[in-house]
Amino acid sequence: MDVSPFIKKEESSPIYLQLYHYFREQIESGRLASEAKLPSIRQLSQTLNISKNTVELAYQQLVAEGYIEGKDKKGYFVLKLDPFDFKHEPDLISSDASKNKELQKEKTFIDFHYGNIELSRFPIKSWKKCLIDALNDPNQEVYSYGNRQGHKGLREEIAKYLFQARGVQCSANQIILTAGTQLAIQLLCQLLSLRNTKVAMENPGYDEVRRIFESQHCEIVPISLEEDGIHMEELEKVSASCAYVTPSHQFPMGMVLPIHKRIKLLQWAQKHSSYIIEDDYDSEFRYQGQPIPSLKSLDTNGNVIYLGTFSKSFLPAARVSYVVLPDDLMKRFQAEFSFYNQSVSPLIQEALFLFMRNGHFSRHIRKMRTIYQAKQKVLLEAIDKFLTGVTVIGQKAGLHLLLECGKVDARKLLKQAETLGVKIYLTEQYWLGASPHSNQSIIMGYGGLTEEEIKIGIQKLAMALKQAGRPSKFIQE
Amino acid sequence: MDVSPFIKKEESSPIYLQLYHYFREQIESGRLASEAKLPSIRQLSQTLNISKNTVELAYQQLVAEGYIEGKDKKGYFVLKLDPFDFKHEPDLISSDASKNKELQKEKTFIDFHYGNIELSRFPIKSWKKCLIDALNDPNQEVYSYGNRQGHKGLREEIAKYLFQARGVQCSANQIILTAGTQLAIQLLCQLLSLRNTKVAMENPGYDEVRRIFESQHCEIVPISLEEDGIHMEELEKVSASCAYVTPSHQFPMGMVLPIHKRIKLLQWAQKHSSYIIEDDYDSEFRYQGQPIPSLKSLDTNGNVIYLGTFSKSFLPAARVSYVVLPDDLMKRFQAEFSFYNQSVSPLIQEALFLFMRNGHFSRHIRKMRTIYQAKQKVLLEAIDKFLTGVTVIGQKAGLHLLLECGKVDARKLLKQAETLGVKIYLTEQYWLGASPHSNQSIIMGYGGLTEEEIKIGIQKLAMALKQAGRPSKFIQE
Repeated sequence: MDVSPFIKKEESSPIYLQLYHYFREQIESGRLASEAKLPSIRQLSQTLNISKNTVELAYQQLVAEGYIEGKDKKGYFVLKLDPFDFKHEPDLISSDASKNKELQKEKTFIDFHYGNIELSRFPIKSWKKCLIDALNDPNQEVYSYGNRQGHKGLREEIAKYLFQARGVQCSANQIILTAGTQLAIQLLCQLLSLRNTKVAMENPGYDEVRRIFESQHCEIVPISLEEDGIHMEELEKVSASCAYVTPSHQFPMGMVLPIHKRIKLLQWAQKHSSYIIEDDYDSEFRYQGQPIPSLKSLDTNGNVIYLGTFSKSFLPAARVSYVVLPDDLMKRFQAEFSFYNQSVSPLIQEALFLFMRNGHFSRHIRKMRTIYQAKQKVLLEAIDKFLTGVTVIGQKAGLHLLLECGKVDARKLLKQAETLGVKIYLTEQYWLGASPHSNQSIIMGYGGLTEEEIKIGIQKLAMALKQAGRPSKFIQE
Repeated sequence: MDVSPFIKKEESSPIYLQLYHYFREQIESGRLASEAKLPSIRQLSQTLNISKNTVELAYQQLVAEGYIEGKDKKGYFVLKLDPFDFKHEPDLISSDASKNKELQKEKTFIDFHYGNIELSRFPIKSWKKCLIDALNDPNQEVYSYGNRQGHKGLREEIAKYLFQARGVQCSANQIILTAGTQLAIQLLCQLLSLRNTKVAMENPGYDEVRRIFESQHCEIVPISLEEDGIHMEELEKVSASCAYVTPSHQFPMGMVLPIHKRIKLLQWAQKHSSYIIEDDYDSEFRYQGQPIPSLKSLDTNGNVIYLGTFSKSFLPAARVSYVVLPDDLMKRFQAEFSFYNQSVSPLIQEALFLFMRNGHFSRHIRKMRTIYQAKQKVLLEAIDKFLTGVTVIGQKAGLHLLLECGKVDARKLLKQAETLGVKIYLTEQYWLGASPHSNQSIIMGYGGLTEEEIKIGIQKLAMALKQAGRPSKFIQE
């Protein structure tokens, strides 16, 4: 390994830092593979004609940051990097995909990651046009901090959409835009003074939201699920400041909450003077059954706070979510929290406003619903054909479903699948505390896969299932 | 006033709501001016052939929301709307400007609003190209949720920039991007566990940051200012978890903290094991004196957290700020707060990365520094020529300065100036608690005004000063 071309003694940056950066980059890029041995301190100091101290300093920094480890008398070795380490730039969608491509190269690699969406059918031309039109907006609103509550036109479009699609009657003035759902939850924690109070959550539930509640020092009260959603008798025994629920498509289990339970939920909130946070994260994509009105549309008492996001229906990269507040909370927001600057870029807001106003958004939703439904059909058919001993749940809506693996250990299945180039995911992170169930099911996102990939993925999963100790209908040709 | 065409009895929305929306819109749009009388309840119920209760309900809602008021036996009258009311869609830049245009029409209207930047010289073409290139990025990173800590390339560009411009040595890995400085402060409150602890802040100081600390239940310890910045003897008596300071250009007073005080600040932090949050919000624009190293660049002990923003140097609408963390805090962030999704849109991040990498950013800064300096020169000359009995402070840097009005009541001056079409601003919101000083100075932002506007503005201010009871060199022609 010849380091010398990369070290410049005349540069202002200290040599040990240059050395450190050089090796770090080599490790991060994978050019220095895990467990590779670094040159010895003595050797490198001779080659570069620098002091041993300098080399040692660089190595110590690399040790401190977890890039390498020193083994007694054997020298320094590259450590295996955790793929979810920040140094590796993890990314919920693309870096997974690109890393996978690198890792697998020849091997088919099919990733049933939840959160991926279909990008090849994204209306890139229309979106680009909206962005350019936004940039050309003569009123220069798009160059400023923007309205603190969010772009008024966009909020009006959202209000219209919510009325048409979800039966939610609200005015633009009740809507606050936030850069993602987590910020919406953070705001609600402040607005409802949730700190040190009880927050009821479905268990399993959405971990990324639970972590916000936890970081805001809420006491999470886990409420278990029945086949048709949240266990109402269990909730009814609990007096909590609020309940966070996903009635349209329980996350991650996927059931749709029936109307009688929705009414009970509202009664619970009314009785305890509690709020319900209804997270309608993927309600755009419903494939079976009658539409059930959103909780918000049934709420006559101002107990329901509605959350929506453009991450699934449009683009995660827009980083646009929204909260619909009952009037009293909106008043409180305006009185106490109006010092918050808007977190979504006015440029993105204006472009999204144009995208909605010009009808692109509703066209996009209609198109994607058909596409996702076709994908799901392929997935369900493949599961039915190739996998035995498994149960599908949560297929009425959304971009993912759950697969209960019966007696097969899900962790074992995951490992087997990985060796065959298929990535599936456990549900353990969605449970509060250890649960025996968390090892019995896997979550399968299909939004980002082609129909062909889904078919092959399930066939490979059938092999994995077999290897994990279960019979399978699949016979290798 | 004929309301009838706007009321549709066959619509699903209740008539009182239709009435309410109709009047609200009339008031918000200014078609119903402040103090205009609404039709009487009896009169309107007859005209529309609806019950008096329905009209009353609509009026009550308008009263509750502060749009109108009932005067005993005289009827209902439109209230003057606070321009910072949300219903009016306030906006730190453009809606102020557009509203002003409407309000003033014939009258010259010159707004010395702090936070406005020069938009006519903004490199719109390069920015547009970067956005389009970002959209065309084949790796589709820009369509995903994005790296949780922020775009790696952008963080690397920021690290380079900070080294060159501010002497800050940090790696991309120590930087976290946030959608605005307030979110950065919120994150720091969590990361440093600041709740219920003491946070020292310059008094006067940046109110938008103070409110975040307050909302996170920090106890603000105000530290007064001397002529050369924070009163170190006062701070030295305080043991606080952290001190938030603006050493490059104190906000709002504008002094630059001298090196000996910087060293004392660092010693204070080291002695108390406290952190210093150095907000370098407009350090790009320095016009006089030797550059003084940033606190962060002097910090050998890992006590300084550096905050930067693109709001002043680039665009408020980008909604991009960043935090540079010492290593130990970065480790804590990765261990405990890596569940936070990135709040800045990956599209904006990629475009900003391209903008910086292609050299547009440094060119832009250089160009704007010259432009802002020229504006400031015009402003200072006009003040010198036309205003007497006032003292200018904080002119070494930034996009604003302070004007101490001597014996003139600042509030009175503001009112007089407004009648002449000039908007200036009090400093009261920057003080913690009431301060006798808050009525003695005004803050003047000049970033968004042309040189011509600045000249006229100061001439008019001279008239206002005269009218407010002070002699002035200005003689009306």
